Amino acid sequence: MNYSSAFIPTLREVPSDAVIASHRLMFRAGLLRKLANGLFAYLPLGLRSFRKVEQIIREEMNAVGALEIKPTVVIPGELWKESGRWDAMGESLLRVKNRLDNDFVVSPTAEEAFTAIVRDELSSYRQLPLSLYQINTKFRDEIRPRYGVMRGREFIMKDAYSWHADEKSLDETYQAMGRAYRRIFKRCGLSVIPVKADSGAMGGSGSEEFMVESEIGDNTLILCKKCDYAANVEKAGCAPDFTPRTIEEAKAAAERTEGSHTPPFEKIETPNVKTIDELCAFLKMESTQFIKTLIYRAVNVELDLSSAPGCAKLERKKPAPDAPAVYPEVFFAAAIRGDLDVNEVKLAAALKASEVSLAADTDVVRLTNAPVGFAGPVGLTALPLIIDHTVTAMNDAVTGALAKDLHYQHTAYGRDFEGWLTVDVRTVKAGDRCSLCGGELYTKMGNELGHIFKLGYKYTRSMNVSYLDENGKSQTPTMGCYGIGLDRTLASVIEEHHDEAGVIWPASVAPYHVIIVPIKYDGEVKDSADKLTAELTQLGIEVLLDDRNERPGVKFNDADLTGIPWRVVIGDKGLSQSTPQVEIKYRREKENRNIELEKAAAELAKNIREEIAALNKPIG
Amino acid sequence: MNYSSAFIPTLREVPSDAVIASHRLMFRAGLLRKLANGLFAYLPLGLRSFRKVEQIIREEMNAVGALEIKPTVVIPGELWKESGRWDAMGESLLRVKNRLDNDFVVSPTAEEAFTAIVRDELSSYRQLPLSLYQINTKFRDEIRPRYGVMRGREFIMKDAYSWHADEKSLDETYQAMGRAYRRIFKRCGLSVIPVKADSGAMGGSGSEEFMVESEIGDNTLILCKKCDYAANVEKAGCAPDFTPRTIEEAKAAAERTEGSHTPPFEKIETPNVKTIDELCAFLKMESTQFIKTLIYRAVNVELDLSSAPGCAKLERKKPAPDAPAVYPEVFFAAAIRGDLDVNEVKLAAALKASEVSLAADTDVVRLTNAPVGFAGPVGLTALPLIIDHTVTAMNDAVTGALAKDLHYQHTAYGRDFEGWLTVDVRTVKAGDRCSLCGGELYTKMGNELGHIFKLGYKYTRSMNVSYLDENGKSQTPTMGCYGIGLDRTLASVIEEHHDEAGVIWPASVAPYHVIIVPIKYDGEVKDSADKLTAELTQLGIEVLLDDRNERPGVKFNDADLTGIPWRVVIGDKGLSQSTPQVEIKYRREKENRNIELEKAAAELAKNIREEIAALNKPIG
Repeated sequence: MNYSSAFIPTLREVPSDAVIASHRLMFRAGLLRKLANGLFAYLPLGLRSFRKVEQIIREEMNAVGALEIKPTVVIPGELWKESGRWDAMGESLLRVKNRLDNDFVVSPTAEEAFTAIVRDELSSYRQLPLSLYQINTKFRDEIRPRYGVMRGREFIMKDAYSWHADEKSLDETYQAMGRAYRRIFKRCGLSVIPVKADSGAMGGSGSEEFMVESEIGDNTLILCKKCDYAANVEKAGCAPDFTPRTIEEAKAAAERTEGSHTPPFEKIETPNVKTIDELCAFLKMESTQFIKTLIYRAVNVELDLSSAPGCAKLERKKPAPDAPAVYPEVFFAAAIRGDLDVNEVKLAAALKASEVSLAADTDVVRLTNAPVGFAGPVGLTALPLIIDHTVTAMNDAVTGALAKDLHYQHTAYGRDFEGWLTVDVRTVKAGDRCSLCGGELYTKMGNELGHIFKLGYKYTRSMNVSYLDENGKSQTPTMGCYGIGLDRTLASVIEEHHDEAGVIWPASVAPYHVIIVPIKYDGEVKDSADKLTAELTQLGIEVLLDDRNERPGVKFNDADLTGIPWRVVIGDKGLSQSTPQVEIKYRREKENRNIELEKAAAELAKNIREEIAALNKPIG
Repeated sequence: MNYSSAFIPTLREVPSDAVIASHRLMFRAGLLRKLANGLFAYLPLGLRSFRKVEQIIREEMNAVGALEIKPTVVIPGELWKESGRWDAMGESLLRVKNRLDNDFVVSPTAEEAFTAIVRDELSSYRQLPLSLYQINTKFRDEIRPRYGVMRGREFIMKDAYSWHADEKSLDETYQAMGRAYRRIFKRCGLSVIPVKADSGAMGGSGSEEFMVESEIGDNTLILCKKCDYAANVEKAGCAPDFTPRTIEEAKAAAERTEGSHTPPFEKIETPNVKTIDELCAFLKMESTQFIKTLIYRAVNVELDLSSAPGCAKLERKKPAPDAPAVYPEVFFAAAIRGDLDVNEVKLAAALKASEVSLAADTDVVRLTNAPVGFAGPVGLTALPLIIDHTVTAMNDAVTGALAKDLHYQHTAYGRDFEGWLTVDVRTVKAGDRCSLCGGELYTKMGNELGHIFKLGYKYTRSMNVSYLDENGKSQTPTMGCYGIGLDRTLASVIEEHHDEAGVIWPASVAPYHVIIVPIKYDGEVKDSADKLTAELTQLGIEVLLDDRNERPGVKFNDADLTGIPWRVVIGDKGLSQSTPQVEIKYRREKENRNIELEKAAAELAKNIREEIAALNKPIG
């Protein structure tokens, strides 16, 4: 392809709204243009790389036996009403009415469409397992699209869905998809961090996210310096830095008469002291000696609260006919060691609640009979108390005393208070220890590129999918889903592979493998450039020939900016050597070297094939 | 690919709403399923063929230098407002509002999006000509979608757009696109009828449609039995079967005193006679001796009517600020020889009207002072009279007399009446003569698969696209557009290539090239089938191996239904020969033949390559 015919409008200036490298470089290198906020057009160079990512994903999906199909992008709203997501999805779902007043959605994902197709065709257990996928347009009406295609409104997603007769079969496909995902990202040259939802329980995980490190990541990741432990902070655990105790052990320790024991708890005046930091300063104690007690409001709680303090009068309701009964609103207290924070996602999971957030001040005052800042576990009876495991190890602690400007000291778990539920709700942070190997944990910000997930029966039940098993009995299949965002994957390749001068494409997803830069595209130089282009093309190497009548500096800058892996410079000086020479340079390196023109095609082809082979090499 | 893993749900029964072969067979052969009215999902087998059509189109577009890009499917409404199509397009345009109340459209075509991209990047004449295309999802909210993907709501279209400095450059790209379209359809195995909008003027055509014959076609085509003349009936012309005359010639002939002349016209009573047929029977004359006069209502007439009869008081209006001034509503009379019909599309073109239709009865009565059925050119002053060329040759004709139950006989053009405008508004029909070669014309029903069109300045002007020419002067580029419907193309392949038993794929777009049918997939038969599969795959041949535990009859039926070009049957009997034999059969032929197993792979590969090579062979 001749550069002058390739429509590569590179830019010197940076778009004003582009704060991350991939966004800047996709515009500057002429890969992408903006149609509207969150809507982008891939230009020819960008689309070439995009298609390579797409093809890698397609090959790996096919390799694990998934079959590609193509439903529509615009999906009947009826299917979304069947699954319940028409109501459950918020405003990010783009809903459309057509001229006949029928409801449609512009697909953000396609569980409903795929399940509807399979429902009509599935009859026998012999058809299972079945994995189908598409690589197709999706739309999410982001309130604040930004970072270019990293968070756009319209994007392309590979979404696969699988159906199974049993959990074992689902797990096999789920594991195979996980391996395929690792290969996909490796082939694209990406370092991903696979994050299991429940990293502690090996093999039992039902969800794994594939993250890349990113300064603007949506997710905080907890990683171990010694082993490959990686978790989303929302679900991360850590090795205990305390000795957990049963309530009996704690009580016995507080009450024993020989050796050390805990004095009876007593009130202390703490005027105008509300936060843990203020309390530490006022009492000259470490934050680990305090118990922090927070009041939370939980929504749609599925947990049985019939025996919980303060919950006797609460009633359960069904939000939908097929849904389980829940308590619409419940307040909880959560107690944790003073140096730690409560993780609301963990707390919500423990309560089986759809949402958990700090209670409003008025609710705190009502439930604790004290201003905000003086909640404590001792004497708290108006609501259920959730105890983090750290608290079970505390024998002599300071806590709020449920009254203004008053705390208790010498409180002891087991002797002075006990919890209604004891769980892990601790937010893990950098410096904590890995629960697998004891190594030091650290944090990274991450962006999710892919997600594999055991859906279970959510869609197959709500949409009435069934098949006949070996005994002719009707059964409901279980289901998995597996997504990858293509635009985000491509942008992440650039995030990981660039320098000041531009993109540095891995050969597997480079728009072209070689850029040939004739110093002046004329005479013998032109002939040599054309000949080398033909030789490389013959070898299956994709060549961009910079035939423009521009200064060499302009061409070199564009070669660096567009990030083509190998650059060949052809000039009169090199060609006039006794054996004609050209200069070759690997984009990733600073040095260039001369090589005989006659040997250039073979050498370049070998290097490119080796790089791609290394990227494609199976993971050990 | 093993059949049992390929998700090919073939059907014995025919979907009740499937009236055409492609619709029936796409469902029966497991290529397609319905999600909702006009919305379809391609299953794995259908998608494989679909992707091959897509790849053929992509290759031919790239070959003519068009560059693939990928804008979004959901396009900002603002762009459509700029071009004026937001208002001009009817309800088939799917309009969406998002959560921020911004307007969007789900693209039916993409002139606006492409023009917006080019507008921002185009600066110099050196960038022209430029051709860009996409192969992407489109949506048209058809009131009555039917015939499967032949007329669906969502579909995939290849749409290309080009920009040029001058008409000559546009014409070069337009011609190249036309040649590419011929190659695309030939490679897909399709017989298309290229229909020029204005077939008479060679090289001056600005629009060409690529039609396939179809019983349910939207278009009536006029074709010549002797030459390659083909036109849409809306625009078709024919050789005159009369001698056209100027008004002076006609008048002189009617009034000459020596030899034959036309007697003075006179009233004749024609009680209860209204139609031409009734009149022929009543007067015992041929329909060619009558002048048929019809009253039409035209909307948005651009033609200057300041000197036209009955139009003195009409006022022009501008429907939009940038649009030319038009008369919102005008009535016309059109006179034509009695055996012919007026073509409303031709009439609208002659009047530069956006729409022409027969006037309501009340308007006819008001304008002719007579009941419907008695309009005639003599004495008609209330409105402009349009004369078809055929009328100029009529010297002694019967016409309506503008009064109930009365006609005139012996009327003569030039002597008794003249027209305000004399044009060709004749509807050409089977049996008329070709204007190019005099051959007999015949008709076919056709469906449009592709369309190439010289857009001119419509979008570049309304959207303010400009570039600097050689002299640094700002210019507006001219533009072409070129579309192909992929779904319709695929369905048309099946329409043209099928029989009672199923699809008969051309090798170029077959989902697989070979289906191997082991009589029983077991023992030596299985080993031979697996080995042959491996050999063929090694040769680049795509194989579907029917590994199912089904009766041979079931497998043979499915092989015929799915239409894989070559079937190989492997059984114990053939394998037990001194040199083991298998049976091969070309789907298009009735006979099968035995061939040595050892030679089967090479022979099949040769046949398939030859078929594809013949389809790919350049058009002379």
